[in-house]
Amino acid sequence: MAEIVTESNSEFAAPGGAAATELPLVLLSHRGPITFDWDESGRTASRGSGGLVTALMGLAEHLADAVWVCAASSDEDRVVVGEAGGRSVLVATGAEPAIVAGDDSVEGSTLRIKMVAVEPAAHDAFYAVISNPLLWFVQHSLYGLAESPVITQVEHAAFDDGYVAVNRLFADAVADEVEARGGKALVMLHDYHFYLVAEQVRRRCPHALLSHFVHIPWPGPDTWLTLPPTMRDPLLRGLLGNDVVGFQTLGFARNFVRCCQDLLDLPADLDALTVSVDGRTVQVRHYPISVDPAALDRIAAAPVTQEYAADLAGAFQSDGRQLILRVDRTDPSKNVVRGFLAFGTLLDNHPELVGKVSFLALLQPSRTDVPEYFDYIAHIGAVVAEVNARHTNEGRQPIDMRMVEDYALVVAAYSVCDVVMVNPVADGMNLVAKEFLLVNSRDGVLALSETAGAYEELREHVLALHPFDVAQMAEALYEALTMDADQRREQRVAAAAHVRTHDVRAWLTAQLEDLAAVQRLGRREAPAAPAAGAPLPPLEGAKHRRRTAARPRG
Amino acid sequence: MAEIVTESNSEFAAPGGAAATELPLVLLSHRGPITFDWDESGRTASRGSGGLVTALMGLAEHLADAVWVCAASSDEDRVVVGEAGGRSVLVATGAEPAIVAGDDSVEGSTLRIKMVAVEPAAHDAFYAVISNPLLWFVQHSLYGLAESPVITQVEHAAFDDGYVAVNRLFADAVADEVEARGGKALVMLHDYHFYLVAEQVRRRCPHALLSHFVHIPWPGPDTWLTLPPTMRDPLLRGLLGNDVVGFQTLGFARNFVRCCQDLLDLPADLDALTVSVDGRTVQVRHYPISVDPAALDRIAAAPVTQEYAADLAGAFQSDGRQLILRVDRTDPSKNVVRGFLAFGTLLDNHPELVGKVSFLALLQPSRTDVPEYFDYIAHIGAVVAEVNARHTNEGRQPIDMRMVEDYALVVAAYSVCDVVMVNPVADGMNLVAKEFLLVNSRDGVLALSETAGAYEELREHVLALHPFDVAQMAEALYEALTMDADQRREQRVAAAAHVRTHDVRAWLTAQLEDLAAVQRLGRREAPAAPAAGAPLPPLEGAKHRRRTAARPRG
Repeated sequence: MAEIVTESNSEFAAPGGAAATELPLVLLSHRGPITFDWDESGRTASRGSGGLVTALMGLAEHLADAVWVCAASSDEDRVVVGEAGGRSVLVATGAEPAIVAGDDSVEGSTLRIKMVAVEPAAHDAFYAVISNPLLWFVQHSLYGLAESPVITQVEHAAFDDGYVAVNRLFADAVADEVEARGGKALVMLHDYHFYLVAEQVRRRCPHALLSHFVHIPWPGPDTWLTLPPTMRDPLLRGLLGNDVVGFQTLGFARNFVRCCQDLLDLPADLDALTVSVDGRTVQVRHYPISVDPAALDRIAAAPVTQEYAADLAGAFQSDGRQLILRVDRTDPSKNVVRGFLAFGTLLDNHPELVGKVSFLALLQPSRTDVPEYFDYIAHIGAVVAEVNARHTNEGRQPIDMRMVEDYALVVAAYSVCDVVMVNPVADGMNLVAKEFLLVNSRDGVLALSETAGAYEELREHVLALHPFDVAQMAEALYEALTMDADQRREQRVAAAAHVRTHDVRAWLTAQLEDLAAVQRLGRREAPAAPAAGAPLPPLEGAKHRRRTAARPRG
Repeated sequence: MAEIVTESNSEFAAPGGAAATELPLVLLSHRGPITFDWDESGRTASRGSGGLVTALMGLAEHLADAVWVCAASSDEDRVVVGEAGGRSVLVATGAEPAIVAGDDSVEGSTLRIKMVAVEPAAHDAFYAVISNPLLWFVQHSLYGLAESPVITQVEHAAFDDGYVAVNRLFADAVADEVEARGGKALVMLHDYHFYLVAEQVRRRCPHALLSHFVHIPWPGPDTWLTLPPTMRDPLLRGLLGNDVVGFQTLGFARNFVRCCQDLLDLPADLDALTVSVDGRTVQVRHYPISVDPAALDRIAAAPVTQEYAADLAGAFQSDGRQLILRVDRTDPSKNVVRGFLAFGTLLDNHPELVGKVSFLALLQPSRTDVPEYFDYIAHIGAVVAEVNARHTNEGRQPIDMRMVEDYALVVAAYSVCDVVMVNPVADGMNLVAKEFLLVNSRDGVLALSETAGAYEELREHVLALHPFDVAQMAEALYEALTMDADQRREQRVAAAAHVRTHDVRAWLTAQLEDLAAVQRLGRREAPAAPAAGAPLPPLEGAKHRRRTAARPRG
């Protein structure tokens, strides 16, 4: 990864006014915002990357009282958990993050983190048996049901002693933090690892305001029948412990409501997107996640990125040649094999393009310890070799596949490519599509699968891909490569403008506004509520940015 | 197949009264009710078996004016088509079916048949590329989407030049028959081969009353995204050409309505189960198909069946041993592999059962020219060998798998077995479940997959199987084998009573009643309609049973 540091989260100051809930914040995600390690200089701390961590850190840093609960992932994380005696630690989150000792003062942003150390066997069952692959595969519709999955006693035990047990552990950690704040807090839970948490937190903390955002697809009820009711019912009930359940798209939100109707037989309203359970009404909403444009602009402008961009343009775009790009993890859901098959078909059908167009694939190997993933990489390699053997022209191979993790190279490739191919089988959102739109400088065309979450937002400005139809994807690539300049520009400018105004901050703001509305509704309904319609005071913490001295790392 | 002949369809006299539509009838199914062949005696004709053919033949035979359109399937069928110059032929449908020459008189039932000869290449594309496997796999959710299907120009061409072309051919044949009847007829279309027919018939015959019954599952909109819109949209639009679209279950009917909402963006009512299209309202209904109890009773009482039953009881049930049965085609949707894995797990978990319980599997090899089906048989064989090797007791193998087609043996096995396992991945209805209930004489237990259509009707009287959960299926088998006699009896008696009153005649009657209601509504809405609520005269043809002399075969 190139040495690019995002210096500041200041653009993510928490939204005030209507979005305010006035409550302390308890966040939960599996991967935390800070990871500790140990090298010759002693304990080190590094910040997670990505828009989600950046956005949520921005929110948490700007509140007077916030804590982020996450799993201890490194050995040093476990040491920190031991030292803290299970309590949260305060971390200075500047350029060189470090734990703040109890009485130190800090200059700059800080973040309170509570890491939870999970016993390895339970974590393995929770993570490597249930969350990935079982939930991941079900939610991305990846199983060939004639043969897989085969759910045995191993999976049942992993669910009970892994997923349920670990969710209980994290629910306790979250509830402890809520109770430490008088039982009233805004709780924001994340992703498919923690579907059971909300229901348990609600039981201990009935006055908490609970929300869960699901980052990956939510399929319809048919697909959830892949799991037995001893698993699927608790997962649904667990999510219904929230006040608001958030998904990436309206389609996924509707699927969730349909699941509650069909699988739990609960009264639900598919237009209002609400589910009634235990005398409560759960709001089902969609908040398309997005990127951090300012951070992306900084990376695009960095010298290393510019250098890469010049190299790529020289290698792939001299003499009017064109460049197709894909950027993906090697996850079977990403549909890399059919993408290359489509490119091969393009060259078969349009031999005049051989030598005139290249396909650069920047792939991150993913979960290579899982057989399905390992086999998938082998299948990708086979197809690449076959297409390259068939269409190499004057010693130039049409596909350049690189297994590499270098975000500056990725952003450089976004900026220069003529077409980006995003053709997942299923995808919660797909941020490659949005990142490309913001930094591309050539009016490149986005060819986007109709089954990617991003398609719901961007459909008017993209070339639709039908991800199982190699012939159609080949024709879409041809259309992209031959589209006239005006149409390319018009499409990309409109799509980029949408992404820039619907950034990750907007994603967060929309959720906070909905939660504030739920809170107002709750107050009006409660006996001791203030007069209906009384304006809420602005979010308390937003006014109190800490200004304390930085502590040297040690 | 044992020599058992169903002699009469008289119990399927067409329902009169409320069910009457007063219209001539045009039926369409891919496989016809009569197939012609040629042997040393000259032309022979044989009647199709199964409840569907029996029920529809019963209806058609008892109407004054009915014709059954179907595909010519044998060489002799093609000769008949040639001789008839593309027109329909009248067939005497008694014990020795034969074509009735123009001026012959017939004693007994007759049926008018119009066979359509399809050019082999087009038929292969229609049947072996699109209908099976593409539609079959999509509708049974069998694809592992990371790798299959790969839709290429081959499938697009097969759709256009096969499925669309053949549907047009049959639509023309149906429309010709409707026009020959003054443009007014009741049209009943069948199954996944002919989704495009109704829309085309409506275009030529706007006054026809059109219905289509889909025998296989209808998955939700997510699953239909497996097909590109150039295929899935015409299929949906084609079905919306009907006045009534019928499915096996409420769940499938709701999925169809959801598909119209999500994929075609049409106004639809999920409670009323209606879809609005082109200024019309399409009724979406469910009619669970069923069996012919009288015919089944006759087969069960036949000496050959009784003999088989005694043999089976001797072989598998002496000394208090118990027998589990399954009866299936070797289709990947039938979940045979996981069924045997569950049986192996049962014996692992309950070693006291080894030697005390056998699993008889009567399997019909199916589509062995398709690689997926051939591989599936190999996988079945591997699991059987593995379980038998692990659990053979005193020379007795626990699994007895027979690749055999002998319906008397099947009915005999139904009658004596203690448990029947019906665990499909997906199934439109599954008549094994219903047949077993009617003829079992030991208060056997039905263990039934929640994803079989039959589950929606029978759930209160069966042990539910979760078809991907081998551990749960093993426990369900244990529960079935150890259930007390009273509970077994109570369950089977209640389930059998349901099936006996909801037989294939009831399935047909419900459709005719709905169609008559649609017709009444149409008349009321039309300017020249009779007074609202005026009773309909009874179905005209039901009063006119032909009594003509039988013609010798030749």
